Amino acid sequence: MTQKVAVIGLGSMGYGIAISALRGRHQVWGFDVNEEQVARFRAQGGQTCAMPEIAGTLDAVAVVVLNAAQTETVLFGADGVAPQLKSGAVILSCATVPPDFAREMEARCGEHGVYYLDAPISGGSVKAAEGRLSVMASGKPAAFAAARPLLSTIAETVFELGDGAGAGSAMKAVNQMLAGVHIAAMAEALTFGMTQGIAPDQFLDVISKCAGTSWMLENRAPHIVAGDYAPHSSVNIWPKDLGIVLDIARKAEFGAPITAAAMQQFLAAAGMGLGAEDDAAVAKVYARNAGLTLPGEG
Amino acid sequence: MTQKVAVIGLGSMGYGIAISALRGRHQVWGFDVNEEQVARFRAQGGQTCAMPEIAGTLDAVAVVVLNAAQTETVLFGADGVAPQLKSGAVILSCATVPPDFAREMEARCGEHGVYYLDAPISGGSVKAAEGRLSVMASGKPAAFAAARPLLSTIAETVFELGDGAGAGSAMKAVNQMLAGVHIAAMAEALTFGMTQGIAPDQFLDVISKCAGTSWMLENRAPHIVAGDYAPHSSVNIWPKDLGIVLDIARKAEFGAPITAAAMQQFLAAAGMGLGAEDDAAVAKVYARNAGLTLPGEG
Repeated sequence: MTQKVAVIGLGSMGYGIAISALRGRHQVWGFDVNEEQVARFRAQGGQTCAMPEIAGTLDAVAVVVLNAAQTETVLFGADGVAPQLKSGAVILSCATVPPDFAREMEARCGEHGVYYLDAPISGGSVKAAEGRLSVMASGKPAAFAAARPLLSTIAETVFELGDGAGAGSAMKAVNQMLAGVHIAAMAEALTFGMTQGIAPDQFLDVISKCAGTSWMLENRAPHIVAGDYAPHSSVNIWPKDLGIVLDIARKAEFGAPITAAAMQQFLAAAGMGLGAEDDAAVAKVYARNAGLTLPGEG
Repeated sequence: MTQKVAVIGLGSMGYGIAISALRGRHQVWGFDVNEEQVARFRAQGGQTCAMPEIAGTLDAVAVVVLNAAQTETVLFGADGVAPQLKSGAVILSCATVPPDFAREMEARCGEHGVYYLDAPISGGSVKAAEGRLSVMASGKPAAFAAARPLLSTIAETVFELGDGAGAGSAMKAVNQMLAGVHIAAMAEALTFGMTQGIAPDQFLDVISKCAGTSWMLENRAPHIVAGDYAPHSSVNIWPKDLGIVLDIARKAEFGAPITAAAMQQFLAAAGMGLGAEDDAAVAKVYARNAGLTLPGEG
């Protein structure tokens, strides 16, 4: 079924979602504050306009922005899109946000007759562009039904985690907790190995085939081996996402010492001015502390 | 090529190695302080005797004990086997030990004309019994040559990491660092998810398919979901192995904050009296701290 779809936020994930939706034969409008990304999307056959021109006709709106504050601005700020939508339209909220925030947005959208699907995404920019994301989704059955035509073109896997907003964001928080810890742990182990004479490429060759491996190790350690910190996912993601995790944990009086330790390393990376680099650059914190020279440095 | 082989230490890993060597048509003698394990091995067609009766005829000795102290006792204590071996025999040292210790053992074995292969193993008891271990090996080319007939029957993968002892143990330390961190991080995330309404089985179903997964998560989280803490690998392994890692790191002036945080959780698990349980029981530390009830409890 073809839908009229808006994608708000054409960063690496949103752009991939928009392109995948186009490929799925939806009518897709793209929105971003970055005019270059909008022009790039238009060149691929996407549509662009001012939101009020089409908001009332849209079936689905994917909001692919950085965080809760941006999500709230997009939905309910000045010119917020939620009140402009027709009854029965659905919002797919893809940013990593606190579960309580997702529940609040669901309620406010409901006041406008609009469905809200708590739909954080996982998989990275490559899978986004291939229409092969994983979506950790929760929401009303009607929200799922309204979102399904779009979901089927952007996602390989849709985890249906419950009949109200919040569960999707909770699972995303759990995933980010492990993903962030595994990146920092990989950096810790790779650089520890260097102090014992193990070269980074040897570390990757061996550990990726052993019980110490992780999805993130196999994905990120090659960046360090190559000395390539062009951002696929940046250091700055982690103070934000682990911040959400630790905020939720604190509220629940849950001690998360390993996550807290990983957080400090990402904060140090950001403090060293590496925030815009690939998140594998957290290895540079360890390298500097231990006087090591990573591949591509020095 | 058929060899005369001794396996010293018939715990879950050593027993599997001994059985795999038997299956590989070697002549295999098994040794353990636990007479039940020795009898079990004999019932499977293994040979048993007092070491001095056959030491001088052995081609290879696999030492599969708990740590460096036991390895040293087996090799050079009263009745130590190393001085009893014929020239050109090889010792496969499989315990997790500090790299410096491995280098010392190599040198001392060399004084007796005996080869030493620094050969820590990875893969768990099931793979050990199947002859499908991974071995992180380093040593002289002649040590590899002498060990190859035995290695080919017990290992699926032999990483050849260098021409002297130490590199194998260093890589094993790196692997254990990540493996231990990943077990504790899995427990942290699983229980954190519980505070947000995510059931352990739902955690496993979703996260094992997402970027937050790890080899250890997929292997150990099912134990928590099943409430089954029968030890495949016990909590007590980790204060030992992460202790080795942190000792090496301290000597290298390498700060390992994530490993240090994971260590505290395993120490707490041991302190709670869970040392002999499966290492997934580290989740009980988090559950107790957060007032959660794990599957199979309460």
